[in-house]
Amino acid sequence: MATMAAQREALRRLRERLATISDLSAAGAVLAWDQQTFMPGGGIKQRAEQLATLSRLSHEMLVSVETGRLLDAAGEPEPGTVEHALLRVARREYERATRVPADLVADLSRAASVGQQAWERARAASDWEGLAPYLKELLDLQRRTAEHLGYEDHPYDALLDIYEPGARKARLEGVFAKLKAALVPMTKRLPLEENRSKPLFGDFEEARQEEFGRTVITAFGYDWAHGRQDRAAHPFCISLGGPADVRITTRFDPGWLSPALFATFHEAGHAIYEQGVDPAHARTPLAGGASMGLHESQSRLWENLVGRSRAFWEHYYPELQRTFPEALGGVDPEDFYRAVNEAKPSPIRVDADELTYNLHILIRFELEVAMLEGALSVEELPPAWNEKTEEYLGLVPGSAATGVLQDVHWAAGLFGYFPTYALGNVLSVQLFERAVEEQTEIPQEIRSGEFGTLLGWLREKVHRHGKRYDPDDLVERATGRPLEPEPYLRYLREKFGELYALG
Amino acid sequence: MATMAAQREALRRLRERLATISDLSAAGAVLAWDQQTFMPGGGIKQRAEQLATLSRLSHEMLVSVETGRLLDAAGEPEPGTVEHALLRVARREYERATRVPADLVADLSRAASVGQQAWERARAASDWEGLAPYLKELLDLQRRTAEHLGYEDHPYDALLDIYEPGARKARLEGVFAKLKAALVPMTKRLPLEENRSKPLFGDFEEARQEEFGRTVITAFGYDWAHGRQDRAAHPFCISLGGPADVRITTRFDPGWLSPALFATFHEAGHAIYEQGVDPAHARTPLAGGASMGLHESQSRLWENLVGRSRAFWEHYYPELQRTFPEALGGVDPEDFYRAVNEAKPSPIRVDADELTYNLHILIRFELEVAMLEGALSVEELPPAWNEKTEEYLGLVPGSAATGVLQDVHWAAGLFGYFPTYALGNVLSVQLFERAVEEQTEIPQEIRSGEFGTLLGWLREKVHRHGKRYDPDDLVERATGRPLEPEPYLRYLREKFGELYALG
Repeated sequence: MATMAAQREALRRLRERLATISDLSAAGAVLAWDQQTFMPGGGIKQRAEQLATLSRLSHEMLVSVETGRLLDAAGEPEPGTVEHALLRVARREYERATRVPADLVADLSRAASVGQQAWERARAASDWEGLAPYLKELLDLQRRTAEHLGYEDHPYDALLDIYEPGARKARLEGVFAKLKAALVPMTKRLPLEENRSKPLFGDFEEARQEEFGRTVITAFGYDWAHGRQDRAAHPFCISLGGPADVRITTRFDPGWLSPALFATFHEAGHAIYEQGVDPAHARTPLAGGASMGLHESQSRLWENLVGRSRAFWEHYYPELQRTFPEALGGVDPEDFYRAVNEAKPSPIRVDADELTYNLHILIRFELEVAMLEGALSVEELPPAWNEKTEEYLGLVPGSAATGVLQDVHWAAGLFGYFPTYALGNVLSVQLFERAVEEQTEIPQEIRSGEFGTLLGWLREKVHRHGKRYDPDDLVERATGRPLEPEPYLRYLREKFGELYALG
Repeated sequence: MATMAAQREALRRLRERLATISDLSAAGAVLAWDQQTFMPGGGIKQRAEQLATLSRLSHEMLVSVETGRLLDAAGEPEPGTVEHALLRVARREYERATRVPADLVADLSRAASVGQQAWERARAASDWEGLAPYLKELLDLQRRTAEHLGYEDHPYDALLDIYEPGARKARLEGVFAKLKAALVPMTKRLPLEENRSKPLFGDFEEARQEEFGRTVITAFGYDWAHGRQDRAAHPFCISLGGPADVRITTRFDPGWLSPALFATFHEAGHAIYEQGVDPAHARTPLAGGASMGLHESQSRLWENLVGRSRAFWEHYYPELQRTFPEALGGVDPEDFYRAVNEAKPSPIRVDADELTYNLHILIRFELEVAMLEGALSVEELPPAWNEKTEEYLGLVPGSAATGVLQDVHWAAGLFGYFPTYALGNVLSVQLFERAVEEQTEIPQEIRSGEFGTLLGWLREKVHRHGKRYDPDDLVERATGRPLEPEPYLRYLREKFGELYALG
């Protein structure tokens, strides 16, 4: 009995400590949000110091002897309970944070910050040599980090696990091989001359774009009492401490409808996930999405499965036409549907359509694995990039800026992150199809601009759990199956088979 | 030598520690700013927890044994050096924070939070009894705080010193007696029937008000690369960690020109002070204004000495007329000048003009001193309030809401704060007159809409020093004289003597 009381007391004190750590992270999130939305330019250096202090304090508190002692003293709650899950996640975070020496953490943080600046300059000048030395250092630091974190089969697993707990390179390769086998041939058969996206270019007043986007995401279920939308150079979603305040940003192009529109759906998808996490998990390690892949599954579900579907536009296209009568009054619904679903190989990942997007991820995955295990040197990266792009997408990037330099991830020290985008795509369909199987009224509701049943299913099966279940567990519970690419491939074959007569 | 090296090392480590404390406060400021400008309503509870965590962590770090040890070990740098000033201020903050027991700090913080909520309800219902019990508790907690802080002559000094280092009740009484002797008779002679402020009411589109205000404060010297202006329920100025990011807020009334206009000048005055502090003081206890009184001197200087002067409007009134041709096209400059300088007793402090404003402060000062020393009970406060208002302003408030319940300060635990408003008024003229004596071109520049010489003088004599000098010292250095009410009274007599033929 004395032991149980001591364990309960340790757990109580651990929760307090974790709440403080969570508050420090939340404060960092507010500062980061402000920096990207409203902060005056002159505040940048001072803000960097403030963010560094907050992150140092929360890291120190996490890796402290006291946290370790409380984690040990909290015992082993009954499996299946929230406490059990909380300790699982807290111990994993503690382990991960304590295994990497403080010096290496600091070196990596500095190198990532410097690397991002170098990347901005290098990309602007399309100057690969401007980035290469930074990338070399980052790769070396990431290799060392992986060794400290530990792994069973491959160093890549150590990094991948940060973003996607439980995921392993070997399993990914199995999934990705199936994607590749199906998608490369389909992509090669796409017509290159067609230009279906023309209706999306024209005169689209920003304020009306914003208003229409808000109308849609409000219908999706984005809760404005617990969020807001602002403008930023890059669209993002950020939780400011829990489901009570989850904000999104968008960037508008008055001459091109789709970027802001689909970015709004996409970021709202992330935000709806965060807003739906059980508030009881707030200020604990169970707060937030289960993994980057599951997060991406929610953004892609609303962006693509809903937002690029015929059912959705059956309801919303007339409203969009009323919003932009001059630009769209003469465009018929089918042409608009084909415009937002144009599939065409592009060198740029962020411009890629549903069909070709994952090929961009495969390229990056294979290259970063090869770099990490030493099979590919940083010097060999640019030609390897171009070769793979030609092999998968049938084109060669015109410049380093539109090729190997296009993404910030590696320059920011993010190795093992790219696959989560592909997992998100795969999971978005697996989850959506299961929701429709269980709630067959969903397609008809979408055709009526109603999303309550779909949202309810996602809330129940995915959102509310936060990090209570690891991704594999959560997917199995939600869909009755492990993660599998077949529903996703079936969906793409059907949709693009019809759109491009690829069947 | 060993000792000096040890002292330098202690000072270096102390600076690091104080920088961390400053970063935590800065993060709190960002969260507070966000809460009052952009935060969605549903975020309020979560934000309160985050703010409480940040303030607890910075308090714990300040009162820690390690901070005490470093303060002891840092020795006694040569008087006159920045290090000497830094230790003076750091030791004072440490003393103040450690003298009050943690329980009492927590009780006061809770009571102040509850008190503000009670005040909002009580004022809305004009229900004195709704506030009285909370005020009793707060008064008791403030008495105990004063005993812990310690004082030589009077418990009021202990509280006053928090906001105005070095100020003492006895000296204030001397200054305030002179204000009272001069201002009460002048106020009694004001005409009550006249309505000179009519031109300020009409149709004043918010966006144009905002644009005009921005034009003026840009000319004053407000630096938009290190600040921004947003809308909030109550205008305020807040530094987000140092001179690099100092923001203001304003509230606009489309039917009444003056509130937003003069609030903008006022808050910009505060912000220009903060933006002018030597960046070398950032992240140290020398950052920010020297005292609340000196801060208010800067806001009042730009609001009143500049912003309500004939010289200023000679330049800006034509531009204001062009901004609002319909509302002001037919109002001649002299009538506009008389409108923005209308003096008329009002029960409400925040609506008071330059002439009667300080009488509101005298009422509060005398009442809070009497309550603190036990000469006046909380029950006796409402009749005492009305008596003093009648005695000084010649009127009796129509309700508790427009009388004893009008200000939040006491309900928020702020006793000893009100006098800093009067000190600010007094100092604004003492500083402005000295600036004009030394730089005689200032009035002519103001007539041309130029403020560089005035700003330069304030930067040099006041702003850049931050908290390096205590208020008495700073005023003596800037003006060659101790704080004195004579310039202020001379200014009021001259200005309102002419406006109302009171001479």
